[in-house]
Amino acid sequence: MKKHNFSAGPSILPQEVFQKASQAILDFDNTGLSLIEISHRSKEFVAVYDKAVALVKEILNVPATHEVLFLQGGASTQFLMTAINLMKVDGGKSAYINTGAWSNKALKEAKNFGEVVEVASSADTNHNYIPKGYQIPTDVDYVHFTSNNTIFGTQFKNYPETDAVLVADMSSDIFSKPVDVSKFGIIYAGAQKNLGPAGATLVIIKKDILGNTGRTIPSMLDYQIHIKGESMFNTPPVFAIYVSMLNLEYMKAQGGLEAISQKNEEKAALLYNEIDNNPSFVNNVAKEDRSLMNVVFLLNDDSKDADFLAACTAAGISNVKGHRSVGGFRASIYNAMPIESVQALVDVMKKF
Amino acid sequence: MKKHNFSAGPSILPQEVFQKASQAILDFDNTGLSLIEISHRSKEFVAVYDKAVALVKEILNVPATHEVLFLQGGASTQFLMTAINLMKVDGGKSAYINTGAWSNKALKEAKNFGEVVEVASSADTNHNYIPKGYQIPTDVDYVHFTSNNTIFGTQFKNYPETDAVLVADMSSDIFSKPVDVSKFGIIYAGAQKNLGPAGATLVIIKKDILGNTGRTIPSMLDYQIHIKGESMFNTPPVFAIYVSMLNLEYMKAQGGLEAISQKNEEKAALLYNEIDNNPSFVNNVAKEDRSLMNVVFLLNDDSKDADFLAACTAAGISNVKGHRSVGGFRASIYNAMPIESVQALVDVMKKF
Repeated sequence: MKKHNFSAGPSILPQEVFQKASQAILDFDNTGLSLIEISHRSKEFVAVYDKAVALVKEILNVPATHEVLFLQGGASTQFLMTAINLMKVDGGKSAYINTGAWSNKALKEAKNFGEVVEVASSADTNHNYIPKGYQIPTDVDYVHFTSNNTIFGTQFKNYPETDAVLVADMSSDIFSKPVDVSKFGIIYAGAQKNLGPAGATLVIIKKDILGNTGRTIPSMLDYQIHIKGESMFNTPPVFAIYVSMLNLEYMKAQGGLEAISQKNEEKAALLYNEIDNNPSFVNNVAKEDRSLMNVVFLLNDDSKDADFLAACTAAGISNVKGHRSVGGFRASIYNAMPIESVQALVDVMKKF
Repeated sequence: MKKHNFSAGPSILPQEVFQKASQAILDFDNTGLSLIEISHRSKEFVAVYDKAVALVKEILNVPATHEVLFLQGGASTQFLMTAINLMKVDGGKSAYINTGAWSNKALKEAKNFGEVVEVASSADTNHNYIPKGYQIPTDVDYVHFTSNNTIFGTQFKNYPETDAVLVADMSSDIFSKPVDVSKFGIIYAGAQKNLGPAGATLVIIKKDILGNTGRTIPSMLDYQIHIKGESMFNTPPVFAIYVSMLNLEYMKAQGGLEAISQKNEEKAALLYNEIDNNPSFVNNVAKEDRSLMNVVFLLNDDSKDADFLAACTAAGISNVKGHRSVGGFRASIYNAMPIESVQALVDVMKKF
């Protein structure tokens, strides 16, 4: 039976990427060696790394002012790195927009390094909307937001307007649509949604915002050291970078982010349309803030949750249970999710 | 032609591990899904994680006083984490034994968090021996050493004796021989030598040494948080942990560390014997400190370096060029290196 994998992350990637990755574990590029036994400084892997960086720059149209890094430690490490690299040692101050879970964790880590202003929060209604109309102080070292919330199913459609350095955790919607990178000081993303397997973290960073804090930064947390080392200050996550490179090649072959964005809109419309028109289901997110990546929904009669889950399982649909903090259901429909799989879920909903 | 991969790391792993890893990328455990598209919180992956931890405990005979973690960021991140987790915020002091390169980097990072005493160093002769007969102050928060040096080809055969908390970077010789874990506060190791692919870091830590610094530690750097989260405070490096688990299974099937250690001794003896008896080659490391993992050697006539390298390449032998800081040659003969490959190198040396 065909499997439909709606996992929130690590998540589905293109089948073609799995095939190539599997082959490279046995024999990488006809070297007679496995991808995972070669030196990260071998010319073969340096070529993979360079290609991955070049593809990120091309696909996201990254300006020359910005560097691209592949690090380890996920977005959780970036919560700490953004703060330690940007917040001044004397009188450091940053602004956070709290859209739940991840942005809250980011905010908490920043408090280790200075004053943190929560300029807006959607906590009043359990984060079912994106705050709007807030004021951002002008004297902050940076402004941080989480572009898409995987748990509550919300997504920024317009990014915050500010003259301060703008920092975004785009872990769950990077590469899902075009982004004007020039407006950002830092964009970071754990790879394990639209980019690649768990174990790599993409960081896109404007060089001239660094080195201004007066702070001594441990080497592994210092973006300037990683820029100088071209992500090889220490041994990089070779496999995760290789698979990301394969997926970036696939994205380019798909026509880039305009084409990908259009497909994502179609998939999301199909599913939200069913939720809105099927009296058994409801989505409580403000319509204009609905995520195109993570579609959350509830059964109007939650005593039937187990029945619905069983119907999904019977149809080969996996990982649609909602996060434990909100309950209900969640369908994560990242780039690699085919519209046929979304249709399979819609078919189950229709029958239910 | 059969390839003989003497890479210093990432390095050779058993062929059986490559086969299983390759298959899991296509279909993990008959789930119909790829290993790299499943949730790290799925019961299937939690079982992999639990098995990896259990195998580390069994193979290294880890006492109940110690926890096992799989983190990200490599030994370089541990340089920082060991210091921030162990050095007291007021009057913090640690002792480091400097055997070159990696221990020097570890020492440098610790200076961010308190006083660092270099209790011994082999810098006087470019690190071609392991210091002995030094005094360790009794008032230090911990003592740090690097058990094996990949660049200079040295290895501790006896560990430092101290009543202080003992911390070891065992990145390049863990799982190569039995170790009395009970004597250590922390053992850490980047996976990419004897354990698995780049991207995972093994940490074995005595629980009762934590929480005593008076320091606020950012979450991702706090061992107590990772222990509480069972290495899943954030998304772990799924693939690298899975492959490590496969390799741990393989080690166990080989008869464990006693059997592995014996093979490693045989391989090293074969190669050192040739170096010592062949007038074309020389090894300048103190005999009692010679590494069983990384065998460094020079040609007595270095004008023939290129010829020797060409002879190696012609015989399918790769990655025997020495580190740029010492020159000459280096054969890394980790666990997975078959004695036949060492013999292939010895044959080239004999003919040369």
